[in-house]
Amino acid sequence: MPSYTAPVRDMEFVLYELLDIGQHADLPGFEDATPDLVSAILQEGAKITQEVFQPLNRSGDEEGCQWNDGAVTTPKGFKEAYQTYIEGGWNGLTADPAYGGQGMPYVLGLAISEMMVSANQSLAMYPGLTHGAIEAIHKHACDELKAAYLPKMISGEWTGTMNLTEPHCGTDLGLMRTKAVPAEDGSYRITGTKIFISAGEQDITSNIIHLVLAKIPGGPKGIKGVSLFLVPKFRLDENGEPGEHNGVSCGSIEKKMGIHGNATCVLNYDDAVGYLVGEEHKGMRAMFTMMNAARLGVGLQGLCASEVSYQNAVTYARDRLQGRALSGPKAPDKPADPIIVHPDIRRMLMTARAFNEGARAVAYWAGLQVDLAERSDNKETRQAAEDLLGILTPVIKAFFTDMGYYNATNAQQVYGGHGYIREWGMEQFVRDARIAQIYEGANGIQALDLVGRKLAANGGRAVRLLLATIQGFIDDNKDNEKLKEFTGPLSEALTRLQQATMWLMQNAMTAPDNAGAASMDYLYLMGHAALAFSWAQIAKVAHEKLAAGQGDAAFYSNKLITGRYYVERMLPDTVAHLAKLETGAHTMMALDADAF
Amino acid sequence: MPSYTAPVRDMEFVLYELLDIGQHADLPGFEDATPDLVSAILQEGAKITQEVFQPLNRSGDEEGCQWNDGAVTTPKGFKEAYQTYIEGGWNGLTADPAYGGQGMPYVLGLAISEMMVSANQSLAMYPGLTHGAIEAIHKHACDELKAAYLPKMISGEWTGTMNLTEPHCGTDLGLMRTKAVPAEDGSYRITGTKIFISAGEQDITSNIIHLVLAKIPGGPKGIKGVSLFLVPKFRLDENGEPGEHNGVSCGSIEKKMGIHGNATCVLNYDDAVGYLVGEEHKGMRAMFTMMNAARLGVGLQGLCASEVSYQNAVTYARDRLQGRALSGPKAPDKPADPIIVHPDIRRMLMTARAFNEGARAVAYWAGLQVDLAERSDNKETRQAAEDLLGILTPVIKAFFTDMGYYNATNAQQVYGGHGYIREWGMEQFVRDARIAQIYEGANGIQALDLVGRKLAANGGRAVRLLLATIQGFIDDNKDNEKLKEFTGPLSEALTRLQQATMWLMQNAMTAPDNAGAASMDYLYLMGHAALAFSWAQIAKVAHEKLAAGQGDAAFYSNKLITGRYYVERMLPDTVAHLAKLETGAHTMMALDADAF
Repeated sequence: MPSYTAPVRDMEFVLYELLDIGQHADLPGFEDATPDLVSAILQEGAKITQEVFQPLNRSGDEEGCQWNDGAVTTPKGFKEAYQTYIEGGWNGLTADPAYGGQGMPYVLGLAISEMMVSANQSLAMYPGLTHGAIEAIHKHACDELKAAYLPKMISGEWTGTMNLTEPHCGTDLGLMRTKAVPAEDGSYRITGTKIFISAGEQDITSNIIHLVLAKIPGGPKGIKGVSLFLVPKFRLDENGEPGEHNGVSCGSIEKKMGIHGNATCVLNYDDAVGYLVGEEHKGMRAMFTMMNAARLGVGLQGLCASEVSYQNAVTYARDRLQGRALSGPKAPDKPADPIIVHPDIRRMLMTARAFNEGARAVAYWAGLQVDLAERSDNKETRQAAEDLLGILTPVIKAFFTDMGYYNATNAQQVYGGHGYIREWGMEQFVRDARIAQIYEGANGIQALDLVGRKLAANGGRAVRLLLATIQGFIDDNKDNEKLKEFTGPLSEALTRLQQATMWLMQNAMTAPDNAGAASMDYLYLMGHAALAFSWAQIAKVAHEKLAAGQGDAAFYSNKLITGRYYVERMLPDTVAHLAKLETGAHTMMALDADAF
Repeated sequence: MPSYTAPVRDMEFVLYELLDIGQHADLPGFEDATPDLVSAILQEGAKITQEVFQPLNRSGDEEGCQWNDGAVTTPKGFKEAYQTYIEGGWNGLTADPAYGGQGMPYVLGLAISEMMVSANQSLAMYPGLTHGAIEAIHKHACDELKAAYLPKMISGEWTGTMNLTEPHCGTDLGLMRTKAVPAEDGSYRITGTKIFISAGEQDITSNIIHLVLAKIPGGPKGIKGVSLFLVPKFRLDENGEPGEHNGVSCGSIEKKMGIHGNATCVLNYDDAVGYLVGEEHKGMRAMFTMMNAARLGVGLQGLCASEVSYQNAVTYARDRLQGRALSGPKAPDKPADPIIVHPDIRRMLMTARAFNEGARAVAYWAGLQVDLAERSDNKETRQAAEDLLGILTPVIKAFFTDMGYYNATNAQQVYGGHGYIREWGMEQFVRDARIAQIYEGANGIQALDLVGRKLAANGGRAVRLLLATIQGFIDDNKDNEKLKEFTGPLSEALTRLQQATMWLMQNAMTAPDNAGAASMDYLYLMGHAALAFSWAQIAKVAHEKLAAGQGDAAFYSNKLITGRYYVERMLPDTVAHLAKLETGAHTMMALDADAF
């Protein structure tokens, strides 16, 4: 059976030694986030995720969710685990204190999320989706709705969902058919069918708060006529408690490749009472709030899949005896050497490790931008943070989830034939990891968002900031000889990213297909530049700590080893991405659609 | 529900226009393989695989194999489909006429195998494993065993299996514990436990012929003391019919990620009567016969997964309306354009297509070497064919199955959220494709076989032949201006492969870990060189046919388009593989095993 150990030491390293979140003590919530308190929270988070979440991961997959006449039964133990989680106050960790939250930094919440998803992705999705819904309501709903719904969503007493997709309409939300007809009391009556609603029905909380996109008849056509509504499963009675069942029901749940512990629902809305969130026809704006946070969260799932599958691959690689090292026996007293002596096994392990540690640094860096964007009182700081976050989000979503799936597949490969057998749990990591590449905007959509929207927004301000930030680091450390092995390759990767950016500016305006054709390679180029940037910064800290003789020397030495693996063995992919990108769209678009 | 259409036209193109198998009419079996007959066989093969095999693919996955007290029930319809297959005489298509086979070229059998696996991988594995067993018995067993077993295995009345793995021993067969004790009558008594035995038990034939590796007590230690035995499920009575149940039983079957229609069995041997195949302690030699054929077959499974999932992704991409083309609406009369207009969708489709057509050419080229090696009366021809086959087999096994999984994953991605839902069938392709990277020697083992064994064998004769063959084509066509867009990149890819080969010669002897560290990148370099070589040859034929105004011009023009995509958008990966390879083993091996 697989296990999970939260990488608390590495999380502390990123939060304190790398990002130095202590420097932001002037921000609300950060003043309390002392190293001692953060460490205590991380330790407690490790405990609940390792002891309560993780043991239900395999059984949740095997048992799955069951649908019966509209009701969904979650796997054994999920309800109790969720209860333990909310009773510990975890659900409101980073939420607004005005509604019962603890107001801690978002970036700390991200670390706790990482633990939860690594331990049990299906179970972690219930609070994960709730957080997205909380944010949309918090930012866009009127005070009355906020007062009525936020406290119990923040406490975790109720969960939330996102309802976008319909059978004929996924990416292209302009095709939406679900209707919202205004009622006399100011509310709306929602009618239509939504599909792929994660946690759309469950038996773990007393109410479910659906956020639903729908069109108000007579409004603008297409995407500009979409509004956002809050539709509770049970309408609230005069005491604010769940009362009458609203006109929403779960028609069925999907049989899926993975995440069996979280029901993917068809929700039928039939004259359900809904309340407008934000303005009429401005639903996409509110939904994007939810989606951006969700996309960062989904990107994190890629890291989680990679981390937990890596850990279990390491365990197996140390235990499994098979063959002898090419350089001579390493365990001569045993019938064979552990397979961790074999270079190709290490290639798979080191690739995951180098990704995990670099990706954690990138993800938390992005998470810190959420805090800066929302909590800083300096306008320039907020804008810079929003810019960085906006451009990094699609990269993290797509690059991280592709890598998560890739590394989970490699971790399964380390197990040989046993990796294909369900009871070993490795194939579940692969099946669960797969969804993250698809939901919250398929990865191709992220790439299009990057090159088609984020890159051009505000005259390219965000990409200029990202490039300048990385270049600034290189310049600042140009005399640091020890760091050259990192800043050199970083500089080359940055040059490739700049060259690709230039290519897009020169070629995509006149022929838009060039943007689409370049999008995924461009996204990977940016992902690698971000990872290489993090690794160079990590190496700098490691060298400083080693020079100062501070702390655990092995920890910092291993950082340098792992970082070297990244720049030597992974970063060269950027050469291929640039070469492909610069060939343009013509080979991709030449074939007649009928000729495929 | 997914569908499958056998790519008969492309198979004919490869067999006749590209490989020109007609030039080998002097070989046994080839004289009868006229284009008319070959086409008729391909057409009939298409019919049975599309109409009989494919419709059972989804239901076979959902139902799976059931184990009950030692007996295995295959999914509904499998027995009848298999019966139809053997009644059509398909099982003996390429087998020795002396034992009832039809003696047709192996390469034609490969095309039929491609259809069978594409249509239904689980069902196709039953005859697939039988063919491996037939070959081992045919090459290594005594005449008595051959006469007793081959006719009914070739007719398909009985199936065959391969028994290598034990719980503690997979790759490292020297650790084997299963024992074979000589009996007075010249037979042996086999005792031990074998695991991961595909089709080890089933209800579709009246007997199952197990080929089992075991150690004769007192023999040499390790791998040199392993012998091969034939162990029938039912011992034959005096009429050669299945009689008394032998001492072999199916203890359980595995719950797996995929290939649910084929039981993966634990087989318990308890004093089972077995017959020596080949010489005592020379079991590995016989087993390698079986494994090499099996590895080519497994490599083919990568192509099959890619082909069938590609076909279904194309169907969906043409049907699904979502968004508008970046270059302006393509279906203005519809609410949205079909998603095949989007470049990133085409990236995934074209990558699969360019792989499929190139890989088919490489696989059949390797298949033709099997024919030349076995049927030519010219010793040099046989040796050259064996050399090429030996070096191409691990490349095809690992590179093709990695690409098969990658392309199946991308095909699933084209479906967006629907790809994750079981009923659409795309996620099954991914789950089924996954096993091919693992069984018959995990892909890392293939890479080690390539750099550790095949490369150095006979003083590097095989790799020199491969390099010279490709260089010869480039030289022969150096004045062909039209072909430069293919021969140019091919020449660069070849140079990289040569450089990598040189690097290995210079660095792997002194530090063996460099061989292991380089192995997978080297394998990919060779795989790409082989594919680029095939594409250059395909392009040459296409240009010739277009110039001569022969046949379907669109077919040949599309070949050029697809080939261009390959060289521009896929071949650049070779730059990264070489760069990584040349960094050596140090970053991979530096971390202490305890520090992971």
